[in-house]
Amino acid sequence: MLLLIPGPVTTHPDVRAALAQDLAPWDNDFRAVCARVLDKLLHIAGGSADEHAVLPLQGCGHFATEAAIRTFVRRDGRLLVPMTGSYARRMVRLAQEAGRAVVELPVPLNEKVDLQAVAAALAADPAITHLACVYSETSTGIVQDAMALGVVARQAGRRLLIDAVSAFGALPFDIAAMPELDAAVFTANKCLEGVPGISFAVAPAERLKAASGQAESWSLDLADIHQHALRQGRGSFRFTPPAQAIAALDVALDLYAKEGRAARLARYTANMGAFYDGVRAIGLVPYLPADVQGPIIVNVRAPTDPAWNLQAFVDALKRRSVLISNFFDTPEPSFRVGCIGQVTPHDMQRAVDAMVEALDEIGVRSRRAA
Amino acid sequence: MLLLIPGPVTTHPDVRAALAQDLAPWDNDFRAVCARVLDKLLHIAGGSADEHAVLPLQGCGHFATEAAIRTFVRRDGRLLVPMTGSYARRMVRLAQEAGRAVVELPVPLNEKVDLQAVAAALAADPAITHLACVYSETSTGIVQDAMALGVVARQAGRRLLIDAVSAFGALPFDIAAMPELDAAVFTANKCLEGVPGISFAVAPAERLKAASGQAESWSLDLADIHQHALRQGRGSFRFTPPAQAIAALDVALDLYAKEGRAARLARYTANMGAFYDGVRAIGLVPYLPADVQGPIIVNVRAPTDPAWNLQAFVDALKRRSVLISNFFDTPEPSFRVGCIGQVTPHDMQRAVDAMVEALDEIGVRSRRAA
Repeated sequence: MLLLIPGPVTTHPDVRAALAQDLAPWDNDFRAVCARVLDKLLHIAGGSADEHAVLPLQGCGHFATEAAIRTFVRRDGRLLVPMTGSYARRMVRLAQEAGRAVVELPVPLNEKVDLQAVAAALAADPAITHLACVYSETSTGIVQDAMALGVVARQAGRRLLIDAVSAFGALPFDIAAMPELDAAVFTANKCLEGVPGISFAVAPAERLKAASGQAESWSLDLADIHQHALRQGRGSFRFTPPAQAIAALDVALDLYAKEGRAARLARYTANMGAFYDGVRAIGLVPYLPADVQGPIIVNVRAPTDPAWNLQAFVDALKRRSVLISNFFDTPEPSFRVGCIGQVTPHDMQRAVDAMVEALDEIGVRSRRAA
Repeated sequence: MLLLIPGPVTTHPDVRAALAQDLAPWDNDFRAVCARVLDKLLHIAGGSADEHAVLPLQGCGHFATEAAIRTFVRRDGRLLVPMTGSYARRMVRLAQEAGRAVVELPVPLNEKVDLQAVAAALAADPAITHLACVYSETSTGIVQDAMALGVVARQAGRRLLIDAVSAFGALPFDIAAMPELDAAVFTANKCLEGVPGISFAVAPAERLKAASGQAESWSLDLADIHQHALRQGRGSFRFTPPAQAIAALDVALDLYAKEGRAARLARYTANMGAFYDGVRAIGLVPYLPADVQGPIIVNVRAPTDPAWNLQAFVDALKRRSVLISNFFDTPEPSFRVGCIGQVTPHDMQRAVDAMVEALDEIGVRSRRAA
């Protein structure tokens, strides 16, 4: 089965094999595994052990996003969120339910964020303490220029939070070049090609110290996770971690190091290109224009043919050993295909071929079938 | 390696094998797996689909405990917590950081909670809305009578929260007989013999509806998890779940059904008895007297011999293929041994034999070696 949802992704067999073991989370042997996973992640983030920390958090990316907001945005702070898609919308909800005020900046879903509009919004409201953005929007597939947004925040004297969940490990990221960054969050199961269960934030150590006591949640307090690591040693968890998922990530990160970030991004970009061109060739319409299409996920507009039925299409594809999401997150009907994980342009072409057959099976005419 | 930490536990090979697969969390096939896991858990809890719900939450037991407190205790509510050990202490911290007021009821660590003292504390403070207790205290090994505490809460017209993390699946539990219960929380990786990464709460559906909007955290809102299930179907997650851990739990719950709760508890009790008697026979002193010793975990007082060193002892045991925790949670030095997981009294005896050798290796005289 070719897993083409936009994460959890198709993993390497060695990654899956590493899951099948019993592990003692606080044993010295396993602490060493955790510590080296954090080292590898810090290296990928461009951080240094003196100045930055990678904070592991049990659970999913949303938990890490809420934790980053709670930890770094004081109750009297305020977030500016460019509304780039449904993950920006979720960030707003996470912040608001945590009692943090949010200012929403409208953004057309198929356009890059207007940096001048962000600068103007920051200038217009001195109470805004943080700019928070989604690096790669799973809902549409658009990638924003997180580094440039960081510069805007820096110039305005504000702090930056990045939801880098579906970006980290593939898209450029260098915490050393982003003095305005409070935290970027990510998970094991996207471009790092591990399995779900563990999320992370990378943050400056000084800021973590200054943020102590702000989170209003022990579970979701990144500053406390940092303090715990300082007290008990890196690789020690406050609460029971998903040990098997961490062991699998350790293997996935070795494979990552072997491939290299640039090569991984090039592979994903080639995957995206093969699929983007492939669906256009069979008469389907990608959600985004090519110039803003990111390499992580492609959303395709649902065919206007009245025979279209997403679940039937997904089922027909599954019979052809291709698995895609049975839901979408765009305002207009679409379907979504991940370009990440242990897959190649050849796999993406196979998915397009399967789509021709699947469309035919459910009675939707595609260009190639016609 | 015999894993005798008090959870994560030694799992069945079939449970570990179920981890090693790529899974699409929202695919209909996997939703069916999630739905049947929730069905199995509801059955174990004694609940009915009409009246109760099992809420899955990514992460660890502490997250579920905080979620239960946030969801059911309003900001103007108040918790009474009998201080039975370090997990009660953690419950207090989770509540306080979430802004919920707590009244602590002192309890000697080696005694059952005095039910009359609980009744008196509830009577003395009408502002207390909830009694919150730890069913099985990992820190000492004591098991409290959660059902009797529930009756006290019921008679006082208060609601009950139970940290059943290290109890659920082995110790008696029947939500149908506990109208005072708001939530009991548990995880996959203790007496259910799955792996860590996913936690649960079981709660009355009516109470979940009434608790909407109280959590002040989207991530940790059990009422929202319930609403999502009502909208999207049981087995659908709001955010990416640890799919492999859930697939493993599905297998673990089949093994559980085959063994039966009573037989599992009897096995754990036999494990505890073999170990408790075994360590006494070699001159060591269990932390708890036999009449309050629970079947889940045995804490043993550290030998007074000056040569005692917990990490050295753990390392010496590991060389003999027995793995125990390298930390303790009692006020006095101790070591802790779990009696749960896929282990038998024979394994526990083997652990005692290994301890004789390990004590000898680190220079601590034990009765048998002498």
